[in-house]
Amino acid sequence: MNVTRDIASTRAALAAARQAGRPIALVPTMGALHAGHRSLIEAARRDAGCVVVSIFVNPTQFGPRDDYVRYPHDESGDLKQCEEAGVDLVFFPPVEAMYEKDAVTKVNVGRLTETLCGPFRPGHFDGVTTVVNTLFNIVQPDVAYFGQKDAQQLAIIKRMVRDLRMPVRIVACPTVREPDGLAISSRNENLSDAQRRQAASLYGALCDAGDRIRGGERDAAVVTREMQRIITEAGPARVDYISVVDPETMQPVANVAAPVLVALAVHIGATRLIDNLRVDPGVRSP
Amino acid sequence: MNVTRDIASTRAALAAARQAGRPIALVPTMGALHAGHRSLIEAARRDAGCVVVSIFVNPTQFGPRDDYVRYPHDESGDLKQCEEAGVDLVFFPPVEAMYEKDAVTKVNVGRLTETLCGPFRPGHFDGVTTVVNTLFNIVQPDVAYFGQKDAQQLAIIKRMVRDLRMPVRIVACPTVREPDGLAISSRNENLSDAQRRQAASLYGALCDAGDRIRGGERDAAVVTREMQRIITEAGPARVDYISVVDPETMQPVANVAAPVLVALAVHIGATRLIDNLRVDPGVRSP
Repeated sequence: MNVTRDIASTRAALAAARQAGRPIALVPTMGALHAGHRSLIEAARRDAGCVVVSIFVNPTQFGPRDDYVRYPHDESGDLKQCEEAGVDLVFFPPVEAMYEKDAVTKVNVGRLTETLCGPFRPGHFDGVTTVVNTLFNIVQPDVAYFGQKDAQQLAIIKRMVRDLRMPVRIVACPTVREPDGLAISSRNENLSDAQRRQAASLYGALCDAGDRIRGGERDAAVVTREMQRIITEAGPARVDYISVVDPETMQPVANVAAPVLVALAVHIGATRLIDNLRVDPGVRSP
Repeated sequence: MNVTRDIASTRAALAAARQAGRPIALVPTMGALHAGHRSLIEAARRDAGCVVVSIFVNPTQFGPRDDYVRYPHDESGDLKQCEEAGVDLVFFPPVEAMYEKDAVTKVNVGRLTETLCGPFRPGHFDGVTTVVNTLFNIVQPDVAYFGQKDAQQLAIIKRMVRDLRMPVRIVACPTVREPDGLAISSRNENLSDAQRRQAASLYGALCDAGDRIRGGERDAAVVTREMQRIITEAGPARVDYISVVDPETMQPVANVAAPVLVALAVHIGATRLIDNLRVDPGVRSP
């Protein structure tokens, strides 16, 4: 397995694969790799000839009150996992390789960034789209893999790629969950045992929403009110949002008449958790 | 010469050249080709194996009061010029091939877009950087050519490419001028004979600025005041700006201590003309 830390070495390392016509797959990560990332890498290995994992904790997508400084780092553990997963190249740049000191360019995806997490994390999605655009320009992948857990991020990246005619295919991979349903996230490590048990209520609330909508409920306000009740009954929690939105545009839906994304962001203690479920009202629960 | 109008055909037409390792050069234009464009195409032909000219009058870089609807079009003349100039591929897309109806993604280059033409053409440079980014994603050139006449556009595109680590080299080509010094532009066609004669004062003012700075003048305000005098003495003109700026950052310079860009935008009648001159204070006039 090759490990590169600068742009020129990365492009040089990939030139041979490109010349040989091997499709290049990129799995962009912020490190602290877990089962969710491993599922992205497995999908990439099934599809492509050359699998690249980028590991970069991107400062521009963290706000001043976000957890950039305490975001987990585990370089040797990450490299070991990549090696075991059959990754061809790990791109592990320092901040200076990614950003010039006086960089000013930003990529913005408009309305899609203004709902859900947008108002709670100003500048976050511009940071994400700008760094993903940059990673795509460095690696020039044929295909890139993102988790459905970050559903708004995924919708925004898909839209950026479509709008800017980027020559890369975006593959969405299902959220990987713990046995009790909690979506796997690097931030779960920050939960105490009690908070960890409480956190299962998020997936419980999403499943309740799915059941209600498939059972015929069309009023998004009724759905989210029940979700709020389930989450707050499980313990002390601060809700950023619980929303029903269009899965492509991320705009709120009042009456459910087509597949929707039910999404939430909830603080348990000092840890902010997000999760979501795509629900098709046309399919009734078995 | 190949002519394509959609993305898939363009990529297919370029696949062979790319496979053969022929460098791909892009000359982005808005059509109505003239000697300035021809100089870009000639530079591309000298450098690269495969020369692509894109012709697209980009609506998103025109404001509501700009001249989008009366911007000159000459498809058959443009194709003939490209053929004669030895262009390999002309990419001539309709608006729908470039933009989805609900496109929302924008590329912004921050402070560089806020000076000179920026305040007079809100959104213009976002339109430019977004469409150039899109053209680069469609054509995937190794090198792209831009005229120094649009100096702010050039600086902004260079910065975008650098900031986003785009895998393309930007080549700046010197401004092509009429015998009396007027920078060649598609918009010159809109000038009456009298306005055309008057317009030579713009280059006269730039040369005066160059002489003064090389002669020892360090006060940018003195330089621009004399330029204003030269231009207004030549006839009725509305000045958007006459400025001395840093050639990379486009920020105003008060005291000239390093190479500067002297730039202006002036309306003569209904026609807005821009021009600029790079001046090195260290080199005295012969």
